[in-house]
Amino acid sequence: MEKNKQYPWSGCGTNKDITGCRFSLSVMRDDYVRHILSALKQVDTRHVWSHTDALSTTYRGHKFNVVNAVKELFIAANDGKTHMTLEATFTKGCPGDTEADIPLALSPKEKEVQEKKFDVLCKFSFYPMGSNDYMDQIAYVVNLAIDRNLYVGPSHYATELKGDVQDLFAYFNDIINYADEHIDHFIYQVTLSVNSPSTQ
Amino acid sequence: MEKNKQYPWSGCGTNKDITGCRFSLSVMRDDYVRHILSALKQVDTRHVWSHTDALSTTYRGHKFNVVNAVKELFIAANDGKTHMTLEATFTKGCPGDTEADIPLALSPKEKEVQEKKFDVLCKFSFYPMGSNDYMDQIAYVVNLAIDRNLYVGPSHYATELKGDVQDLFAYFNDIINYADEHIDHFIYQVTLSVNSPSTQ
Repeated sequence: MEKNKQYPWSGCGTNKDITGCRFSLSVMRDDYVRHILSALKQVDTRHVWSHTDALSTTYRGHKFNVVNAVKELFIAANDGKTHMTLEATFTKGCPGDTEADIPLALSPKEKEVQEKKFDVLCKFSFYPMGSNDYMDQIAYVVNLAIDRNLYVGPSHYATELKGDVQDLFAYFNDIINYADEHIDHFIYQVTLSVNSPSTQ
Repeated sequence: MEKNKQYPWSGCGTNKDITGCRFSLSVMRDDYVRHILSALKQVDTRHVWSHTDALSTTYRGHKFNVVNAVKELFIAANDGKTHMTLEATFTKGCPGDTEADIPLALSPKEKEVQEKKFDVLCKFSFYPMGSNDYMDQIAYVVNLAIDRNLYVGPSHYATELKGDVQDLFAYFNDIINYADEHIDHFIYQVTLSVNSPSTQ
């Protein structure tokens, strides 16, 4: 182990109640730029900090607001026919996190996003960090998907889910609430897919 | 913690020297299906186990062969003008892994893949599991990127890299060799992007 350098994140760390999601929306059509920018503009980001870079967009804020904003983005982006995927990293508690880049209001907003329904194929991996009993935590998360009838089955390095977009995001909310309560630092890595020719 | 259920992966586990990569290639054009299938066909998969499902493709085998096959796929898929991303999860050592789905030859093959060069934008996150000193391991991996002049900077929940495709995959190989030697169970999550209008 090389120890002659400081941590790249030296001096960081936060006690604030900040959950984040870094996501990349991939739209499989020629005019993907218009499609992505249009979806991003439709999201009510008053309750999250939002930043788009060359690889992805990041939302930060209260966990409820972050999950809600990602759900709103995904629903806004789906035109019901174009194949698209959303790769998203929900996370909280990294020791390298900063006090900066947070929204003014950290409390959850009450409004629920739209009630649109459509089927989504999904894979996820759950990474509870710094703990020896992490497989117990992963088992809890997988078993909850089984209980909700979202579970398709295991596959190498991920768990596959299928379900309505509303049910999936309700499950994500519950996972992140559970993780927030039980785990200091966690990552919930998810990929959503709609309108894929592979699933027809 | 709910303890009334068995692990979904009960009975699994392997002592075999199997590294895996589960990846999704997103091609931002109308005829993405042809583009993806054509790239997959060009990869020499004689030294990896390969399986494509509705969400992604998985390669399993010796770590060298797996990284090599993913590199070959990414180079084959890049036509130099179409924006595409590759989201890939390199991993080894999951207690829920199986003895199955391995190639006949686990030894590394000697042939190097093609010498094509092009710039790639990249983000990665490294997750060493079941260990309290995981931030030390992450620091090593980030510092190695700094040493190789691949480091762009930190961003929320990921580290950004930029470099030639050959240098990036050489770095991935070194990270996975390091992780294989020092960490029982690790995940190296990476997203590569080429020909993006956001980087011009």
